[in-house]
Amino acid sequence: MSVYAERIARVREQMSATGVDTLLLSVGADLPYLTGYEAMPLERVTMLVVPRDGEATLVVPRLEASRVVEQPDVFTVSAWDEIDDPLERIAGLVGRGAASIGIGERTWARFVLGLQDALPGARFRSSTEVTAPLRMRKDAAEIEHLQAAATAVDRIAAEMGERPFGGRTEADVHRELADRIIEHGHQRVNFAIVGSGPNGASPHHEASERVIGDGDVIVCDFGGTMDGYCSDITRVFVVGEPTAEVRDTYAVLHEAQERAFLAATTGTPCEAVDAAARTVIEAAGYGEHFIHRTGHGIGLEEHEEPYIVAGNDRPLVSGYVFSVEPGIYFPGRFGLRLEDIVVATEAGPRRLNEASRELAVVA
Amino acid sequence: MSVYAERIARVREQMSATGVDTLLLSVGADLPYLTGYEAMPLERVTMLVVPRDGEATLVVPRLEASRVVEQPDVFTVSAWDEIDDPLERIAGLVGRGAASIGIGERTWARFVLGLQDALPGARFRSSTEVTAPLRMRKDAAEIEHLQAAATAVDRIAAEMGERPFGGRTEADVHRELADRIIEHGHQRVNFAIVGSGPNGASPHHEASERVIGDGDVIVCDFGGTMDGYCSDITRVFVVGEPTAEVRDTYAVLHEAQERAFLAATTGTPCEAVDAAARTVIEAAGYGEHFIHRTGHGIGLEEHEEPYIVAGNDRPLVSGYVFSVEPGIYFPGRFGLRLEDIVVATEAGPRRLNEASRELAVVA
Repeated sequence: MSVYAERIARVREQMSATGVDTLLLSVGADLPYLTGYEAMPLERVTMLVVPRDGEATLVVPRLEASRVVEQPDVFTVSAWDEIDDPLERIAGLVGRGAASIGIGERTWARFVLGLQDALPGARFRSSTEVTAPLRMRKDAAEIEHLQAAATAVDRIAAEMGERPFGGRTEADVHRELADRIIEHGHQRVNFAIVGSGPNGASPHHEASERVIGDGDVIVCDFGGTMDGYCSDITRVFVVGEPTAEVRDTYAVLHEAQERAFLAATTGTPCEAVDAAARTVIEAAGYGEHFIHRTGHGIGLEEHEEPYIVAGNDRPLVSGYVFSVEPGIYFPGRFGLRLEDIVVATEAGPRRLNEASRELAVVA
Repeated sequence: MSVYAERIARVREQMSATGVDTLLLSVGADLPYLTGYEAMPLERVTMLVVPRDGEATLVVPRLEASRVVEQPDVFTVSAWDEIDDPLERIAGLVGRGAASIGIGERTWARFVLGLQDALPGARFRSSTEVTAPLRMRKDAAEIEHLQAAATAVDRIAAEMGERPFGGRTEADVHRELADRIIEHGHQRVNFAIVGSGPNGASPHHEASERVIGDGDVIVCDFGGTMDGYCSDITRVFVVGEPTAEVRDTYAVLHEAQERAFLAATTGTPCEAVDAAARTVIEAAGYGEHFIHRTGHGIGLEEHEEPYIVAGNDRPLVSGYVFSVEPGIYFPGRFGLRLEDIVVATEAGPRRLNEASRELAVVA
């Protein structure tokens, strides 16, 4: 049995357990998880229809049908022409009997609303209720893929530390990161945040034409997709000797990240991992400067369940893979963030990233 | 009044005309069209709430709030923290009075379903009913942006024709296209299709490791985003002298594209432009090999309304900008497509792309 056929079988068990009659999967990672095929994010809809019993069908635009690698033990292909109504076809495959439909969480609103009109009796829920319990728990092959991607960005972090930052623009450093992400074996650059000086205080800052200067603290947060799986790492660089304040707050951050990492044992609720980091930062008096959650799951998507956030009492299970990335931000001045990808195992938490976690002093 | 304030005023008129009480805009182009701000495609929701009367509010994750360029005459910012429920906040801003909600057509299903739960009395429709009539009709500044992006890809098409294709992989040509798209002033590469030989018969083929050989026909379809607006062009290259069959079918395609271009006068229904291309290809006996519509609107998005497709009786209006891109595909052998961006004007259709439309013979 192929990995996809195995996954579909487990998805069907989960559909039974959660009372979902039909899954409808379009853009997003559930579809490639179950079929190896990724839907193009276009106005021409692609959708896998998975009844709890009976054969799955991949409804796909005719002009994309030749891109599909068929998996006869998983689905059959139904290609639609430009003058067809694909939502009508999908509704026909769902049938009138389906009361509860799980739809991919990134499906475009226009398709959700169109299908609700075409299937007025059905209740729509997010497919995540069905797929997340499976996708969160990575198997050995998936962890190998995530390890390979993590090792690649570890190398990039080390290489970046050997080059000068001073005198270059953020956009220039961004381009170097993006190029290296591809050179080191990723097929896709997902993001390459370069936040220097005051820009580092904006966690999702877009690299600008700001020229990096002496004494600047630079947050570099970057990742891509390699063979379907994502990397994500954050390291902090500083041009010349850091001030005592930067060194001291970085030491707090480093300690917070280590505490959260050590807390990430199986059975521990996600929120307790968040609290482990937060407690250290709060005790040092920087609580209000840590303005985001501690982490997110990672796999086929950069951000997926489980979220390492207050209020999430889901206990960690062996095979869960997630980021641990506390941050401390001083608006108008500088920011700090330190991020590794961690896998929960029965033997304790294990980091996939091993690049140096010391503040990197650069020219 | 800023361009955004003007657009919001026109959107409100359109809301009145279509009976929409509140617009909810997230990922996709409606939000930047009205605010200049683009939502990150993340599980942390960003949403502009536009009541028909009263102030608009941009609900945004706290850690992205510093990226927002405020437009006090257009919206106020409401930042939510990691432990807040943003959908509850959005529902509160919508209020119980709203019976009809227009939601951005690319909004993620998880947010659509969550908002439907939070606002059980409201009817949800696509915001496109409100925004498309405005967005389709480009103003002079928008046409200048589209012209600049078109001129950039024209230059790339010319440069590509001067280099050898033979002996290189599709992926290598793809990388060259992607690099040139950035070099020529785009901020983002949207796609760079390189379909050589039999791969050219798959209109959305992903560049592969196939090595391009003598006699190969290569479809290159590429575009990016420059200052918010998209480019999109397709040209065909052939390694060495084309066969008589390639030359003859290309002549049919060239004629079909020209006919569709000439048909694109204001007042002409979109479907008649499609028919103009299709009639030429059908008359030559290749009707079944033209497997897609003739074109799509283009602007802030690569594909947007109006679609140049059978069944779309919307008449062209001055300022509409769209692609004209018929294709002829022979599965297992080769494909051909020829694409320009065209603007409808009172003085007749005008092409934004002026790169040579001849079959480009390369080494």
